[in-house]
Amino acid sequence: MTEKIDVRALQTRLARFAAARDWERFHTPKNLVAALSVEASELVEIFQWLTPEQSARVMDDPESAHRVEDEIADVLAYLLQLCETLGVDPLAALSAKIDRNETRFPVPGAHANDRHSPES
Amino acid sequence: MTEKIDVRALQTRLARFAAARDWERFHTPKNLVAALSVEASELVEIFQWLTPEQSARVMDDPESAHRVEDEIADVLAYLLQLCETLGVDPLAALSAKIDRNETRFPVPGAHANDRHSPES
Amino acid sequence: MTEKIDVRALQTRLARFAAARDWERFHTPKNLVAALSVEASELVEIFQWLTPEQSARVMDDPESAHRVEDEIADVLAYLLQLCETLGVDPLAALSAKIDRNETRFPVPGAHANDRHSPES
Amino acid sequence: MTEKIDVRALQTRLARFAAARDWERFHTPKNLVAALSVEASELVEIFQWLTPEQSARVMDDPESAHRVEDEIADVLAYLLQLCETLGVDPLAALSAKIDRNETRFPVPGAHANDRHSPES
Repeated sequence: MTEKIDVRALQTRLARFAAARDWERFHTPKNLVAALSVEASELVEIFQWLTPEQSARVMDDPESAHRVEDEIADVLAYLLQLCETLGVDPLAALSAKIDRNETRFPVPGAHANDRHSPES
Repeated sequence: MTEKIDVRALQTRLARFAAARDWERFHTPKNLVAALSVEASELVEIFQWLTPEQSARVMDDPESAHRVEDEIADVLAYLLQLCETLGVDPLAALSAKIDRNETRFPVPGAHANDRHSPES
Repeated sequence: MTEKIDVRALQTRLARFAAARDWERFHTPKNLVAALSVEASELVEIFQWLTPEQSARVMDDPESAHRVEDEIADVLAYLLQLCETLGVDPLAALSAKIDRNETRFPVPGAHANDRHSPES
Repeated sequence: MTEKIDVRALQTRLARFAAARDWERFHTPKNLVAALSVEASELVEIFQWLTPEQSARVMDDPESAHRVEDEIADVLAYLLQLCETLGVDPLAALSAKIDRNETRFPVPGAHANDRHSPES
């Protein structure tokens, strides 16, 4: 359903949210990357004592599922604010990175000339 | 320009990339959050010795700009793979979080009854 | 053997090392905690794709053993420099924390009145 | 005063603490490094919105001073437990690292032959 939430719209909401509270002065790139890493660690904290198998079932419990979604939201919030501040398009940056990685990590066993059409 | 890169399309590319290299077995939620936090720290590393003012100019230097974009891409890549694995919609999660934060952190000076229409 | 390396002596060496290179101006508490967290993530990076069982054998390979020791040294270096800057005694802080945790997390099955003398 | 708290004694207390609560099964190297990085991030969280100047005065406020000491203790606790599990001597590892760094980062302006006796 999600009806047209997009990255731009979220960045606009985040910028208005910060501006209304006069929080922009805290949002240097240096502070935003620190906050991003702190939120990423709060995600790690949820999983730190779990076995790999337990970690795969983390969404089965409604309380931990909510906690995971909440921390994912926080990571994304700081990532988008950082990108806004720096003038980086995160989706374009990732797309370009996947392009580079396809060259850097060739598919094992794929021949250079059939990589993009394995069926040929 | 960026012509229609969206989150879903990136998640599909990332899933195919991992599947082609047989990397899916490494991508437990526990491992993905660890990798996400490591990439977030690689962003922090770029800024760790900078003053707030220097951090605001980090994109002026092409080499550090590229490094920043590269690490942003890595953070986003692991975040999207985590969301795919867990069945979380990251944009919906962030939208819901902003809704909650608007209640949790009321705008200072805004009266309860005009909070959503400051111009009235 | 380790012949008398102690925390104070290491702090003195680290302080002289930084002073000789004029690096003290970078060592605000804010920067030192960022650097500490970056080094902790470099430790995580070594383990991020390992199974729990593989992680238990990490010291069997001389190269990864060296890498682990190197990152442990970096974490400790920034922790000790932070403590020096803030005037915190890290060993006393940990000793006090263990005291608090013994109250906070009582041993399961231990009766309140025999906790400190299980043999009585 | 601190009367003879040393690293070995703290490691012994931590090992007994974990054993008494049957927590050893959680303490794989992989989990301990994750926990270490989470605690390091809790330190970062205290400083994330502070200016460099504010960060230098963090111990002036008793409440934030206590919080800083508490997180330093947690970082050290996981670092020492990790070292115990892996058989690494953290003080020897740091001492060896400082030796290597003295070669890697020569003092600017110091001549090779007077580096260790600038007064000569």
